[in-house]
Amino acid sequence: MKVLMLISNGFEEIEALGTVDVLRRLGVEVTTCSVTGLKKIISSRGIPIVCDKEVSDIYADAALWDAVVLPGGQPNSNTLRDSDKVMEIVKDFADSGKLTCAICAAPIALERAGLLSGRKVTAYPGCLACDGSYEYTGEKVVRDGNIITSKGPGTMYDFAFEIANALGLGNKLEELKAAMMLY
Amino acid sequence: MKVLMLISNGFEEIEALGTVDVLRRLGVEVTTCSVTGLKKIISSRGIPIVCDKEVSDIYADAALWDAVVLPGGQPNSNTLRDSDKVMEIVKDFADSGKLTCAICAAPIALERAGLLSGRKVTAYPGCLACDGSYEYTGEKVVRDGNIITSKGPGTMYDFAFEIANALGLGNKLEELKAAMMLY
Repeated sequence: MKVLMLISNGFEEIEALGTVDVLRRLGVEVTTCSVTGLKKIISSRGIPIVCDKEVSDIYADAALWDAVVLPGGQPNSNTLRDSDKVMEIVKDFADSGKLTCAICAAPIALERAGLLSGRKVTAYPGCLACDGSYEYTGEKVVRDGNIITSKGPGTMYDFAFEIANALGLGNKLEELKAAMMLY
Repeated sequence: MKVLMLISNGFEEIEALGTVDVLRRLGVEVTTCSVTGLKKIISSRGIPIVCDKEVSDIYADAALWDAVVLPGGQPNSNTLRDSDKVMEIVKDFADSGKLTCAICAAPIALERAGLLSGRKVTAYPGCLACDGSYEYTGEKVVRDGNIITSKGPGTMYDFAFEIANALGLGNKLEELKAAMMLY
């Protein structure tokens, strides 16, 4: 299983790195991929990390991946939304039936790409326009077809586990929860 | 409030960076401090981060800080335990009545420093010797005087909130939980 995480400055630490942690523990090959032009980015609370790749250095074709994940935090969420390259990638993934996932404010990127229409979705309260073209449920995590959305750092495990389930890894979750002292 | 986090290669992402996230959201000045000789370290699941400081570049005297925090993960926990510099620092903090906190396997560092004797403690199951000199409760988080211990990534919020409570920031936690979508 190969998961592409698109990320930039101001990402939310738990949403991004907690999701990477959970998925890598499950044996998923996660590639953290900066969209800023530089592999070194800094989190919303000032932690510098080095991404595995920069987006111009990878083949982002949906055919090569199983899922794309957009963490939240600001200005990361706005950067992802405003990037034409990110728009191109998430549309390719969603149209190819690949999992397309966003948490916190990052569903605004899926909204701009037109991927929420007709879907049930969730997100950090107040960040989506909620123009009537989709149903905002306010749940911790929502999967509607190949679109998974979630609310914030406090729902990171719900988000990561829903991605794992959708990747067919649900049978590994009880062992993972025990190993992570989640109960 | 000033908190010193001692950290090295193989740290657990959620335990370390989730705790930094929570404490910085509460206005705490957290300094991530590598004990490896290099500010750039790598997490247990392969995420490189850059620490704020290296331990030889700071004044680690307990008088200048309110708490010291040791995240878990391996080999980070063993590195912290085997470091004479870390032993010196945690003894200084504990003896000065400053908060001395460790999660997951990192309580083994407090054990080697002799700081668990006569205390109630918790940790990742199976990592402490449990020689009868302290009481292992197995709870998610335990505060006994100025020593706070916790179990693993799944108890990071319990750990961070107990530290916040001990720092007198408990009145900010309901607002924080709401902002982080924890419910």
